[in-house]
Amino acid sequence: MARWEPNAAERLAHAALELFAERGYENTTVIDIAQRAGLGKSTFFRHFQDKREVLFGGGTMNALLAEAIAAAPATAGPLEAVAHALDAAGGEVFTPARREFIARRQAVIAANPELQEREALKNLALIASMADALKRRGVADLTARVAAELGALASTIAFERWSRTAAEDDFSEIARQALDEVRASTAFC
Amino acid sequence: MARWEPNAAERLAHAALELFAERGYENTTVIDIAQRAGLGKSTFFRHFQDKREVLFGGGTMNALLAEAIAAAPATAGPLEAVAHALDAAGGEVFTPARREFIARRQAVIAANPELQEREALKNLALIASMADALKRRGVADLTARVAAELGALASTIAFERWSRTAAEDDFSEIARQALDEVRASTAFC
Repeated sequence: MARWEPNAAERLAHAALELFAERGYENTTVIDIAQRAGLGKSTFFRHFQDKREVLFGGGTMNALLAEAIAAAPATAGPLEAVAHALDAAGGEVFTPARREFIARRQAVIAANPELQEREALKNLALIASMADALKRRGVADLTARVAAELGALASTIAFERWSRTAAEDDFSEIARQALDEVRASTAFC
Repeated sequence: MARWEPNAAERLAHAALELFAERGYENTTVIDIAQRAGLGKSTFFRHFQDKREVLFGGGTMNALLAEAIAAAPATAGPLEAVAHALDAAGGEVFTPARREFIARRQAVIAANPELQEREALKNLALIASMADALKRRGVADLTARVAAELGALASTIAFERWSRTAAEDDFSEIARQALDEVRASTAFC
């Protein structure tokens, strides 16, 4: 396996998390974060629009999910295409190597209403991104929106479970299980 | 019909909207809003935690929806109970009398990322509130979450449609139609 090589965005995110833990979110500036990462302020702003954004990957998740939906087999139905997006999230984002980082990141978000608001808006953007990717596959507008919402709910549930399980458990498998349960639940609504 | 009698929270919200339109959201303070409404700053903070909150009713919507779900007939399934919540929204919030206020409010939110973030978080709180109300009716945890998400999506779609239609159209009817369509779409996911 290739050694995990941090890029600028990841270095900035790690530096930000360290500083938020040491001195609090409010008492940390963008300049502090860039310095800790050994980078300049202009590099920070090339990657992130503001301090909040440093914990949200600058929109790479939207592209990752949309690309996975686009790349799903032509025969895949809407929720099966969404399952491919969740596979991609498990392969690139919610990986064993990033587990501790993600847990610390969630703790910082949970403690900061500003960050919770940004996360809520990011979640809406992810849902819109998945719905658009489904529409480009020819899925009807409303069905695409419903499938994207159900996929996002399955992802949230999978994340809750993954966060509580043993370190080796695979996010993609947990997410597919959650998606099956969510789909089955629609029959009882 | 009884004359619509504005209370302090409504007066503050109307004053805030006027000021945001006149001088912009950033250039308006809580004190400006309270003065315009003919009220004191302490009254503002009795109703709202901060400036953003003045456009979000201080949590009354959560209680309204949860109470309507609790009051739905015992025989109602999860989405039928959610339909009662949308009826309540149509009866008390998305009314013909409040239509112009709501349209101006949406325009201000659309122009302010900070307000969009607060709205996104409020939307999550509404979904959680509906899911909890369903669980208290004995609905299984996952089914309650799915029904609340589908109800929130139907509400969003209904709001989009209601905003574009003639002033007399009833939100509750539009919402029930949207809920039926959302429910039907789950079969194609």
